Amino acid sequence: MNAKSNDKKGGTLYGLGVGPGDPELITLKAQRILQSVSVVAYPAPEEGDSLARAIAAPHLVDGQTEIVIRTPMTPGNFPADDVYDRYAAEIAEHLTQGQDVAVLCEGDPFLYGSFMYLFVRLSEDHPTEVVPGVSSLGAVAAVAGKPLVSRNQILTILPAPMDEAELESRLASTDAAAIMKVGRHLKKVRRVLARLGLEDGAEYVEHASMEGQRVLPLSEAGDGTAPYFSMILVRHRDGVKV
Amino acid sequence: MNAKSNDKKGGTLYGLGVGPGDPELITLKAQRILQSVSVVAYPAPEEGDSLARAIAAPHLVDGQTEIVIRTPMTPGNFPADDVYDRYAAEIAEHLTQGQDVAVLCEGDPFLYGSFMYLFVRLSEDHPTEVVPGVSSLGAVAAVAGKPLVSRNQILTILPAPMDEAELESRLASTDAAAIMKVGRHLKKVRRVLARLGLEDGAEYVEHASMEGQRVLPLSEAGDGTAPYFSMILVRHRDGVKV
Repeated sequence: MNAKSNDKKGGTLYGLGVGPGDPELITLKAQRILQSVSVVAYPAPEEGDSLARAIAAPHLVDGQTEIVIRTPMTPGNFPADDVYDRYAAEIAEHLTQGQDVAVLCEGDPFLYGSFMYLFVRLSEDHPTEVVPGVSSLGAVAAVAGKPLVSRNQILTILPAPMDEAELESRLASTDAAAIMKVGRHLKKVRRVLARLGLEDGAEYVEHASMEGQRVLPLSEAGDGTAPYFSMILVRHRDGVKV
Repeated sequence: MNAKSNDKKGGTLYGLGVGPGDPELITLKAQRILQSVSVVAYPAPEEGDSLARAIAAPHLVDGQTEIVIRTPMTPGNFPADDVYDRYAAEIAEHLTQGQDVAVLCEGDPFLYGSFMYLFVRLSEDHPTEVVPGVSSLGAVAAVAGKPLVSRNQILTILPAPMDEAELESRLASTDAAAIMKVGRHLKKVRRVLARLGLEDGAEYVEHASMEGQRVLPLSEAGDGTAPYFSMILVRHRDGVKV
């Protein structure tokens, strides 16, 4: 979508994928835009630092206004609508004044990213451009060091919080899967994969491409609570066809 | 995977994601590696230019050896094993001589990329690092300008060449889907989506982020043969929850 291809006026809203964690996995385009905007907004937990800002930090320039979007990060507990209404209004003020605003997004903006909550509130009235980024999925597959899918295989992306029976039927019928948002669902996911005979060959990755990166066979991942930024990769018994 | 974390000797093999098409959607890391290696290898159709090389071209430096990996690109017609055996041997020679080799991969190396054919032949004997890139999936979602999945929704990546009945049952049971490798299967995919009542809201994108980019509602995409680099995005009737 070209930000200038319509008659919307004022500053441009950028949904900027900053990649999975390593600041070097940001794109040239995201870097250029980061250095050109006057306002930078980013999600952060209710308390503590923003990962998206940490990824972008080496590329920020002096004098930029920063908007910290504080929302609950508890998996399964999604922020109330009014939180995003409020931040959208704050961002809209800058856009109306002709200032460009970059909203930083971990990974890719449109793959489970929280940017979409702002996008639906702002893109109809303001020039908007989404800049794709390296997704955590690609980063996890890269550090796990094994191809995930090839040829005409099916890849299913499954959020770990889903119902156990549904998770099982989905995993039983796909060639490969990436299970996201593992968190407190690690034990459940392991139980399902064990029942399906798919635990061998499954990999557990946390903090891919970031400080604290861990890559383990799932069988060594324990069954406690995993960090929010963890993922499990599952291949079908027949494996990748190469 | 850290290229230096084992006792393999010689040059490093890089599987380098160069992103979906726009040379500005390459990562800083891929750019740095591109400028440091002495050998660059890239896939190309049997005749004609390599898209991966065209994406990387602004970042290449003088004096690099180039290996053109020529393989048939006909969808559904996968190259014979001996093609990759031969190229793997050629690349292995450079690695053994201590030269670093970057294999350029459109999009992301481990998501349906042909790099995996070289990876399985070379990574056991040579230091290997996979550098994730912006996938065509992220680029397509960005230019289509609509969020694809949110919260705990399921995303299924389906290759269009699959059997019509299976395609239908997969599409019926997912929250969102990206249908890849559309090519000559456009008519079949449209037929299936129409039967499921999912054609409205589906988007057709070809050459995302590249010259010749087209973004259309699927209903306007015709039913001829689509280019190899085309994708269809499908959302469930209930849409993205934002």
